[in-house]
Amino acid sequence: MNLSHIEHIGIAVKNLDESIKFWENQLGLKCYSVEEVKDQKVRTAFFRIGQSKIELLESTDPEGPIGKFIEKRGEGIHHLAIAAAGLQGNLDELAGKGVQLIDKAPRKGGEGLDIAFLHPKASGGVLLELCEDPNK
Amino acid sequence: MNLSHIEHIGIAVKNLDESIKFWENQLGLKCYSVEEVKDQKVRTAFFRIGQSKIELLESTDPEGPIGKFIEKRGEGIHHLAIAAAGLQGNLDELAGKGVQLIDKAPRKGGEGLDIAFLHPKASGGVLLELCEDPNK
Repeated sequence: MNLSHIEHIGIAVKNLDESIKFWENQLGLKCYSVEEVKDQKVRTAFFRIGQSKIELLESTDPEGPIGKFIEKRGEGIHHLAIAAAGLQGNLDELAGKGVQLIDKAPRKGGEGLDIAFLHPKASGGVLLELCEDPNK
Repeated sequence: MNLSHIEHIGIAVKNLDESIKFWENQLGLKCYSVEEVKDQKVRTAFFRIGQSKIELLESTDPEGPIGKFIEKRGEGIHHLAIAAAGLQGNLDELAGKGVQLIDKAPRKGGEGLDIAFLHPKASGGVLLELCEDPNK
């Protein structure tokens, strides 16, 4: 395994524009990108903080993963994403150890990253994403 | 406001020793400290990852904050802690903007940090901790 840093924290929000205001006006961070990820049925907003990012996620469909999360648990932290160089190799290693994966191979996430999720049952209720920038 | 990086992610777990095994054996991180924080009724384990840490939290009392969290929501991500130089000044600024705080002044947290929590109602369901190392 080759985990280097927290790439981002994903936070489920009901209203992206209102939440952007909180992180900008109250906490002083700067939203540098708003992006729709149609595959995930979300609109996202990104803020840099040190090595990491805050990713706000607003559902564009009540049946999407963020819509369902908010219906069940309300707004709040949705997932933890860790940068992992050699993502496919890391996934193969985890699978070989019997760790339950949602994605056995990387798929495309926000900002062009290759991403893969572990199953929360494997990681103590934490929805854990591993990700890698294919351009680095 | 003066937020620099994600200091740690706090994760509520039922069994600290079992969870340490997952983060060490499956993910390859190294637990460098186990500590009891009596004030918070938790036993904690820390792992470094880049600029940040993963903090696992096991309740030592069902009536403590982590015990109640797990009873209500199960294991999972509990809070997001951001390093904030000049913590008291940041808290005063937030209070002046009408942001609801749990702690209007810093108190002692794990690893000797000064910490303060915002109220999750203020931050869209995210339990947000600001913290500062008084020795830096």
